Amino acid sequence: MLQNDIFLRAAKNQSKDRTPVWLMRQAGRILPEYRKVREQAGDFKTLVTTPELACEVTIQPVDILGVDAAIIFSDILVIPEAMGLIYEMEERKGPVFPKVIQNEADIKNLHIAEAGDLQYVLDAITLTKKALNNRVPLIGFAGAPWTIFSYMIEGGGSKTFSKAKKMLYTHPALAHLLLDKITESTINYLKGQVKAGADLLQIFDSWAGILSPEQYREFSLKYIRKICEAIPDVPKTVFAKGAFFARQEMNQLPCQVIGLDWNMEIAESKVMLFSKVLQGNLDPCALYGSLEDVRRETRNMLDQFGHHPHIANLGHGLYPDTEVDKVKCFIDTVKEYSVTLR
Amino acid sequence: MLQNDIFLRAAKNQSKDRTPVWLMRQAGRILPEYRKVREQAGDFKTLVTTPELACEVTIQPVDILGVDAAIIFSDILVIPEAMGLIYEMEERKGPVFPKVIQNEADIKNLHIAEAGDLQYVLDAITLTKKALNNRVPLIGFAGAPWTIFSYMIEGGGSKTFSKAKKMLYTHPALAHLLLDKITESTINYLKGQVKAGADLLQIFDSWAGILSPEQYREFSLKYIRKICEAIPDVPKTVFAKGAFFARQEMNQLPCQVIGLDWNMEIAESKVMLFSKVLQGNLDPCALYGSLEDVRRETRNMLDQFGHHPHIANLGHGLYPDTEVDKVKCFIDTVKEYSVTLR
Repeated sequence: MLQNDIFLRAAKNQSKDRTPVWLMRQAGRILPEYRKVREQAGDFKTLVTTPELACEVTIQPVDILGVDAAIIFSDILVIPEAMGLIYEMEERKGPVFPKVIQNEADIKNLHIAEAGDLQYVLDAITLTKKALNNRVPLIGFAGAPWTIFSYMIEGGGSKTFSKAKKMLYTHPALAHLLLDKITESTINYLKGQVKAGADLLQIFDSWAGILSPEQYREFSLKYIRKICEAIPDVPKTVFAKGAFFARQEMNQLPCQVIGLDWNMEIAESKVMLFSKVLQGNLDPCALYGSLEDVRRETRNMLDQFGHHPHIANLGHGLYPDTEVDKVKCFIDTVKEYSVTLR
Repeated sequence: MLQNDIFLRAAKNQSKDRTPVWLMRQAGRILPEYRKVREQAGDFKTLVTTPELACEVTIQPVDILGVDAAIIFSDILVIPEAMGLIYEMEERKGPVFPKVIQNEADIKNLHIAEAGDLQYVLDAITLTKKALNNRVPLIGFAGAPWTIFSYMIEGGGSKTFSKAKKMLYTHPALAHLLLDKITESTINYLKGQVKAGADLLQIFDSWAGILSPEQYREFSLKYIRKICEAIPDVPKTVFAKGAFFARQEMNQLPCQVIGLDWNMEIAESKVMLFSKVLQGNLDPCALYGSLEDVRRETRNMLDQFGHHPHIANLGHGLYPDTEVDKVKCFIDTVKEYSVTLR
């Protein structure tokens, strides 16, 4: 059905042609076309909750950049909101929760989200699938329970995440209660995304890197596993930023693809994650170099992945001040150079 | 000469008794006695630049907590300041540089600091050595060139450090020019610290974890090595937060001790850093637990280090909201429990 299914085939380790390529945060930020729609929407949350607009910016990078997959334009924080914690997106500062989780009563008051609570995302997916018209597959996504948990306790970003981590040490049973509720909500949500048309799901564990290896096992990996097990129907990618210490265990996760950040040595990761397709991992700052620099760094990355099943991406989301022609150069280099490696 | 030289002997791998213990950020923040002196000083920078006050807060944790080493109260940002970039310490926000490095002319205008440019730190060390009266050794310190470089370009903390990293990709020769100047200044400064009485030097590479393995080698480790080679007279500790990927190479550094953060698995680090004394690495958030929790976590850490040469510490600086009795419990547990492990 799909005209370009190279991304999906690679995710299932069935590709023998070139390396597919897409970029985390490809929808938004760097594209003038995005900023126009964003302005029209007025604010970030209107953009996220208006299916027509979310659909439009989701498709932009497919048209403009030529990526091999679209990822639905949304935010991982729609889940805490669907559970009862409203977030606000502050310009330049990022997300802020005016009310945070502080005790058992707060956790008990939280609602377990149903897919229907996030109908606007499901509608955006349905609309986007139709508009994509089978050109490329569509990625759905959610935050990992530990990352969502951190936001719900901290109320925003943090340098140390000491409030969220404090709960793990002082009230581990409460922490598990909250993580369970988030996990159940996320499973309901992701099942809805698959029903609406998502071809692959990616789980983002943005704050994986602040936990010790033992705590990561107990408070994060366990819940990621639950999510993967609950949704066998589509391929799944797990991207746990900073969880270098968990790579050997992630090789056992019931998912197909593991995302690497740019800190993770490729050669070492190929050994530790031998049964997984690997996604990543160019340093987003490498796109600040000249076109020649970008070409060299991209080729160097492809050489290092070699014959390991690979989906090209950055090791983190695109930074807002990246120039569009550098992004195009990255994409084109992957497409051209990876053919020569087969 | 020293009454308690267990820390220094451990750093030279000559200790056969219990495990020594101190804490990063032990001077300051959590002690009411510190806050009194801090108030008296008026602001942070006055405290840092007044030898009598810096001496007083350096000694407080020796008296109050019973640690096996003192570390001179200062800031890694005195080096950029001595080179010509003034910093301001903003309450709750951290350090800010009103003027940052943007181009070659800015770098050329920088002065290479001499030890005498930081006479107030050297005076504080001399004064502290006298006041300590040989009770415990005194640690001197500086930031690693890469971390200082980042502050000088970014002007403060950052989520992505994309400005500092951009220079590595776009103007690597300029980056090396600046790193060289910082390194020379740091060597002059640390030599002065040793002359003034510092018994061991620790190099803090706080932002190690944002570089790729290749860039870390080229733009950080190389300069840390230069510093270590330039000062053979005292033992040296290198603490590179987040540089898990560089552990094998750090085993080759001409220093005695490597600090581990709490992300770094102990068993794995013992193998990778087999020739080094290891320092660390309890998660600072573990001190949020009950006294029983703190005892259990501390014993668990000591068990994992086992017979590997070890200096007990946290895997990062103490967080400001840590309770003093938890810190004491950590220290006492190390002292008591480690004896039983020999």
